[in-house]
Amino acid sequence: MSLPKKSTLTQEIVLRMLNQALQKAEDLRIKISIAIVDDGGNLMGFIRMNGAKVIPSNIAQNKAYTAAGFGLPTGDWYERIKDKPSLLHGIVHTEKMTIFSGGQPIYDGVDLIGGIGVSGGSEEQDNACALAGLSVLNK
Amino acid sequence: MSLPKKSTLTQEIVLRMLNQALQKAEDLRIKISIAIVDDGGNLMGFIRMNGAKVIPSNIAQNKAYTAAGFGLPTGDWYERIKDKPSLLHGIVHTEKMTIFSGGQPIYDGVDLIGGIGVSGGSEEQDNACALAGLSVLNK
Amino acid sequence: MSLPKKSTLTQEIVLRMLNQALQKAEDLRIKISIAIVDDGGNLMGFIRMNGAKVIPSNIAQNKAYTAAGFGLPTGDWYERIKDKPSLLHGIVHTEKMTIFSGGQPIYDGVDLIGGIGVSGGSEEQDNACALAGLSVLNK
Amino acid sequence: MSLPKKSTLTQEIVLRMLNQALQKAEDLRIKISIAIVDDGGNLMGFIRMNGAKVIPSNIAQNKAYTAAGFGLPTGDWYERIKDKPSLLHGIVHTEKMTIFSGGQPIYDGVDLIGGIGVSGGSEEQDNACALAGLSVLNK
Repeated sequence: MSLPKKSTLTQEIVLRMLNQALQKAEDLRIKISIAIVDDGGNLMGFIRMNGAKVIPSNIAQNKAYTAAGFGLPTGDWYERIKDKPSLLHGIVHTEKMTIFSGGQPIYDGVDLIGGIGVSGGSEEQDNACALAGLSVLNK
Repeated sequence: MSLPKKSTLTQEIVLRMLNQALQKAEDLRIKISIAIVDDGGNLMGFIRMNGAKVIPSNIAQNKAYTAAGFGLPTGDWYERIKDKPSLLHGIVHTEKMTIFSGGQPIYDGVDLIGGIGVSGGSEEQDNACALAGLSVLNK
Repeated sequence: MSLPKKSTLTQEIVLRMLNQALQKAEDLRIKISIAIVDDGGNLMGFIRMNGAKVIPSNIAQNKAYTAAGFGLPTGDWYERIKDKPSLLHGIVHTEKMTIFSGGQPIYDGVDLIGGIGVSGGSEEQDNACALAGLSVLNK
Repeated sequence: MSLPKKSTLTQEIVLRMLNQALQKAEDLRIKISIAIVDDGGNLMGFIRMNGAKVIPSNIAQNKAYTAAGFGLPTGDWYERIKDKPSLLHGIVHTEKMTIFSGGQPIYDGVDLIGGIGVSGGSEEQDNACALAGLSVLNK
């Protein structure tokens, strides 16, 4: 029996993504944590910068999980739910779910292969770092 | 001593409900997970479609649990609590509770025998799939 | 950048594995629950037979998770740890970990693609049902 | 008022420790996950190698947490508790506690500054990788 194949993250790419996100944070002069998970939401890589805080280090992991778990940027959620009060008051309680910016799904073409989450700066800064990490895949 | 009887879900009906909900999802061209629980909230059947995401696969289980646990469609909750701020800000924190559409209680006449939960599409699509599953009982 | 590919479970195979395990249980005249998870430990499919009990329905899920999470049959663990008291008293406390028979990893060649777990009969019977499910992949 | 100072882990040292442990795993031809936590038990760095399994990736985190949380190698526990049945049957249930080898506390002189945990090989192999990581501090 022949099964379908899909792309998978590798340790090498995870380390390069972490490094790229770190460089962006240094450019922005912010202190962040960065988490990368596979398509099952399980941790692949993580780094906390000197001076980065404890709760954002957990939020980074939740953002990565949420981005991989839905295949959507975490920052897309508020627009999607702001006019649907049942979701606005409801889906936010899903375990680990994070509806603000800084998490990006990782795709290889159409294959969802994981998520990257950043926390420590503003939403915009966190997202810029996540996108910097993602850019590794386009090289 | 004579004890009352109540209807119970069977494995055969659970499989037919899962299949009916799957067919509806294929008609709607969406990728969903479907969970069915018994009247104790314990899993009876579950299927995740190809390409369905991880977090919705948990939400489907939570919707089934919530529907069976209260005997109400999950989509009824927002109307019930929206003008009662203590509930709107409180009951949503109940473990696994889901207040948006896509979960339906399963009744046989007056007997509450379980719940079905669907997640992966919009609230309306998820609910349409849950209702398709329920329709097996009316045949 | 070129990423490695790996095989993945599909909904069709999951349903066939569930059916094959169910048939084995009927042959053995036992009442079981069967769970199948993907390589990330996330639920793909589940069925509880009529008369199957509640706690075994959770154990089936834990067996599938443990088999996928280590890539080993759950029944191999006791032999591996029985002479290493730190593991015998320690690793058994890992969340959801199950060290008795009835869980099998699912491989496609060298790719670990998930796990199947069965509970409800004796260890030997549960394992026979899990192996029956696995046999679908060899057809 | 003058407060005492204590040493702290840095991002640079964490990355070097991860790399050193990775190299040891490559020498041993094993697939591991490595976690490093600070003195509060909070994650500082993590990497999962290609082909490393999901449950060991959680165990690595638990080992790092346990090592930092007591300031002891995780492999010391069994000897400490084996003749004290209340501990042998009791303390092992502490959340995340791991009593087998592969976790090492990180000290700078007398300052406990964190823990490193490795899982994926045998206890001895995991511990050798953790010690390789620690060796960065002695250079």
